[in-house]
Amino acid sequence: MLYILRLNHRIKRDKRITTHCALTGRAFGADGMIFTGEKDDNIVKSVEDIIKRWGGEFKISYSSRWQNFLTKMKEQNYTIVHLTMYGIQLLEAIPKIRRKKNLVVIVGGEKVPSEIYEKADYNISVGLQPHSEVAALAVFFHEYFKGKELTREFDEIKFKKGLKIVPQKKGKKLIKK
Amino acid sequence: MLYILRLNHRIKRDKRITTHCALTGRAFGADGMIFTGEKDDNIVKSVEDIIKRWGGEFKISYSSRWQNFLTKMKEQNYTIVHLTMYGIQLLEAIPKIRRKKNLVVIVGGEKVPSEIYEKADYNISVGLQPHSEVAALAVFFHEYFKGKELTREFDEIKFKKGLKIVPQKKGKKLIKK
Repeated sequence: MLYILRLNHRIKRDKRITTHCALTGRAFGADGMIFTGEKDDNIVKSVEDIIKRWGGEFKISYSSRWQNFLTKMKEQNYTIVHLTMYGIQLLEAIPKIRRKKNLVVIVGGEKVPSEIYEKADYNISVGLQPHSEVAALAVFFHEYFKGKELTREFDEIKFKKGLKIVPQKKGKKLIKK
Repeated sequence: MLYILRLNHRIKRDKRITTHCALTGRAFGADGMIFTGEKDDNIVKSVEDIIKRWGGEFKISYSSRWQNFLTKMKEQNYTIVHLTMYGIQLLEAIPKIRRKKNLVVIVGGEKVPSEIYEKADYNISVGLQPHSEVAALAVFFHEYFKGKELTREFDEIKFKKGLKIVPQKKGKKLIKK
């Protein structure tokens, strides 16, 4: 199982970034996302609306304390990956991480507590410049799944009902499964 | 040269998403971004602040009309790539696109005019589920540059001054170039 832990959500500033983290995780194969920081029912609602329309079983929930969640996941032998621009390079670390089946992938805001760096099994950088937690998650999952996440038939795995896109050179084609 | 065209920016809703599009473009090797929609000096300011601190020559500007910009770029033989979940699959199209040196990569909001689909040389989908323009740009550039964007020495190319990260297993290390 693959979970995202999104730290330090701030309602005003991060509304859409946190939603995009969840949707990116969902589209690229994660099973769920927990977010901490400010409680925000709109995030949960937005993501659940997408799941309702497009299918799948992605879980999204708020937690007031990341410590409890991480402790529980570590007890269950999850590997903890923290995406930070200060870590070791993604392409160097990814072959080892690909062998792990159960991951928690952490993305933070600007002030990540140093405890996170300590608790993580891997502190991974996606490039050496500041950019975006959404971009970091996307490239991480893309490398983890070796690009297979982009073409797989979701309906065979867990997208049993919902909308389905038919790739087109021009325009849009969408069918109801 | 590689430019991003970000359509339909809305100040309230897209502030951070549009900034993240620009920062992701910059970090992954684009030369600049033009955004349309609502004029927003704060976006320009945020991105220019990052450039001032971290180096590089990324250009960011607002345009009231994407039509003029696209026409100009087409006259200069730029290839127009539109990232949309309805297009043909990235991994199918990318070998051809990699051969093009001058690109405009378009990302839109929810309502992309059909003219964009028509004007684009390639309508490309990064996965078949809704997610994020930031994620789409990141994975597109990652595939376009074959991952080299993550490890290259920016200072040798265009990041002549600014901050530099030294990859670490735990913690942060930053030096002033």
